[in-house]
Amino acid sequence: HTHRIAVIPGDGIGKEVVPEGVKVLEAAASTFDFTLDFERFDYANAEYYAQHGKMLPENWFDQLVGFDSIFFGAVGWPDTVPDHVSLWGSLLQFRRHFDQYVSLRPVKLLPGVTSPLVGREPGDIDFYVVRENTEGEYSSVGGKIFEGTERETVMQETVMTRTGVDRILKYAFDLAQTRPKKHLTSATKSNGISISMPYWDTRVEAMAARYEDVRVDKFHIDILAANFVLHPDWFDVVVGSNLFGDILSDLGPACTGTIGIAPSGNINPERRFPSLFEPVHGSAPDIAGRGIANPIGQIWSASMMLEHLGETEAAAGILDAVGAVLARGGASLTPDMGGQATTAGLGDEIVTQLTGE
Amino acid sequence: HTHRIAVIPGDGIGKEVVPEGVKVLEAAASTFDFTLDFERFDYANAEYYAQHGKMLPENWFDQLVGFDSIFFGAVGWPDTVPDHVSLWGSLLQFRRHFDQYVSLRPVKLLPGVTSPLVGREPGDIDFYVVRENTEGEYSSVGGKIFEGTERETVMQETVMTRTGVDRILKYAFDLAQTRPKKHLTSATKSNGISISMPYWDTRVEAMAARYEDVRVDKFHIDILAANFVLHPDWFDVVVGSNLFGDILSDLGPACTGTIGIAPSGNINPERRFPSLFEPVHGSAPDIAGRGIANPIGQIWSASMMLEHLGETEAAAGILDAVGAVLARGGASLTPDMGGQATTAGLGDEIVTQLTGE
Ligand SMILES: CC(C)[C@H](C(=O)O)[C@@H](O)C(=O)O
Ligand SMILES: CC(C)[C@H](C(=O)O)[C@@H](O)C(=O)O
Repeated sequence: HTHRIAVIPGDGIGKEVVPEGVKVLEAAASTFDFTLDFERFDYANAEYYAQHGKMLPENWFDQLVGFDSIFFGAVGWPDTVPDHVSLWGSLLQFRRHFDQYVSLRPVKLLPGVTSPLVGREPGDIDFYVVRENTEGEYSSVGGKIFEGTERETVMQETVMTRTGVDRILKYAFDLAQTRPKKHLTSATKSNGISISMPYWDTRVEAMAARYEDVRVDKFHIDILAANFVLHPDWFDVVVGSNLFGDILSDLGPACTGTIGIAPSGNINPERRFPSLFEPVHGSAPDIAGRGIANPIGQIWSASMMLEHLGETEAAAGILDAVGAVLARGGASLTPDMGGQATTAGLGDEIVTQLTGE
Repeated sequence: HTHRIAVIPGDGIGKEVVPEGVKVLEAAASTFDFTLDFERFDYANAEYYAQHGKMLPENWFDQLVGFDSIFFGAVGWPDTVPDHVSLWGSLLQFRRHFDQYVSLRPVKLLPGVTSPLVGREPGDIDFYVVRENTEGEYSSVGGKIFEGTERETVMQETVMTRTGVDRILKYAFDLAQTRPKKHLTSATKSNGISISMPYWDTRVEAMAARYEDVRVDKFHIDILAANFVLHPDWFDVVVGSNLFGDILSDLGPACTGTIGIAPSGNINPERRFPSLFEPVHGSAPDIAGRGIANPIGQIWSASMMLEHLGETEAAAGILDAVGAVLARGGASLTPDMGGQATTAGLGDEIVTQLTGE
């Protein structure tokens, strides 16, 4: 097998952690005997924006559409490009045009990682957040009236389609069905948001009727967020709209102490278009350029990418290697985890663990 | 002074905890020498709905508008009334018609209360969430097209007005100015929600220019939620839109272990209309009718109500009494806190502490 991978480091620490991800992917390819064909693209970053006044070239779609996956670092450099410009000009374009309608994020308490929650052990917390990734609250539909006056009024539309809601629910129910607990939790707010959220609930009920073996419950987003802190052991697969999924998929990793190392997939399940894998952390301007960023989020994202590409053994191999290095702890971790390693040092450690050399 | 208070117990445990709140208020009035004139209203509950097909009588506004405050229990009984019906038919009507545009909730780690967060001590966490309470994401504007077909599309409008945004920001900045740290955090999502949230940010910047002594920062809601868990000590006054404030004001009390006992105020700061004080917890159908609900959320809400009415000494007295009873702990607390007391028993304990008898 040969998989064609587009590599886009982006901004800030994206540039530092992506090479570590690539290093680990190359080691996995030779250990597990498949071929990865990388091509690097130096756009979707602040330098490109400074030169061209936009984040991407005209023909980005044609350049990227033929790849099997995109291996992405991070985008965002607020000193020179406002966040909504850099994100709507790149990452959110990829999500929409490549119809990456699933954002998938594991929430998992790993050995060796300190959780901020009292008394939780590895194994206690192990679930997925499945987020709708193309529509909902992230529309650019809306506008202003009476602009600049005291009567100024701003409208922003949340748009949910049956197609959009049903396909994310189907993905989440399918995922729940593969899990031992077969339990799905839906995030709603139908008690306050009176049109879109009751609609979401109705579609969940309709889908649930087709998955009789899946146990379904729902929580309003306010108490659901609270329950991530109070009862993280309750969850197995949690599905939410674009905004609710966004919030929960940062909050979940925060609860397991993994926000700095959590991965994410922006997935087009049918593989009509390339999916994109990226760490949850952003470009981290505060530590960028110092070679101390933790590469595990990027490397864990590499594992998710291989899983998506069907290289399940290699995917598991990378995750096991990460787990072993984390469990060992100590100086070979980066400073954010109390160690003394550089970004590249920790990447090397994981390669060594993976290849058994 | 005489303050006229409308008492609305509502549904479920609201009926059990409200009498304890009233009991404590009466004790406070006689101890601190002012008069409270209570009138009870048996609407905004499922029984009323069953009889009348609506949550409130036609003339509710006229009945309630003359009161100085509304002392509210909880509403919601999903077995017989769908949540969005009960809430939009009562609580959300009060918020809108009485222009209770501030929702105020303390997030405070109290002695004797177990926080789910590792290593946090009383005093470490002590902030307010200020939530816009009338507009924003909680609009009922929107609708469906292609209903019932595969092309079904649902729209729901978020509406922000300059008046609405500026007045909540002003309240939050004013509050920040009274606090030792003078620090305000704004919840945004301008990187994903591209019209309303950048507008919110602009108004925060404009308001900040008028409060030079207040230190201002902002976080996107996803990472802000994560930071409630990771760095709750960072916050002093946190201000957010209706939805973001809703999420944060459940998440905050979850982090301090107080979700079952936290209070809230729905406030019309100008006192043109009655403000409403209610516990954060809902009607709790699972434990309703057993006389074991914890009345502290209701009693703490009583303290907030007296503060709003200008009875600051009595307000502090109630909060001190609650703190002392919590710190003592043991059997005199309700079962949710590991004790053996009934709702009324814990109410009596707090009265005794307050009156020193
Ligand atoms: C019940 C619901 C409509 C309400 C809200 O979201 O405003 C509740 O969660 C609250 O926070 O008071
Ligand atoms: C950067 C931002 C637009 C993005 C989002 O909200 O989708 C990020 O928070 C994420 O979760 O990938």
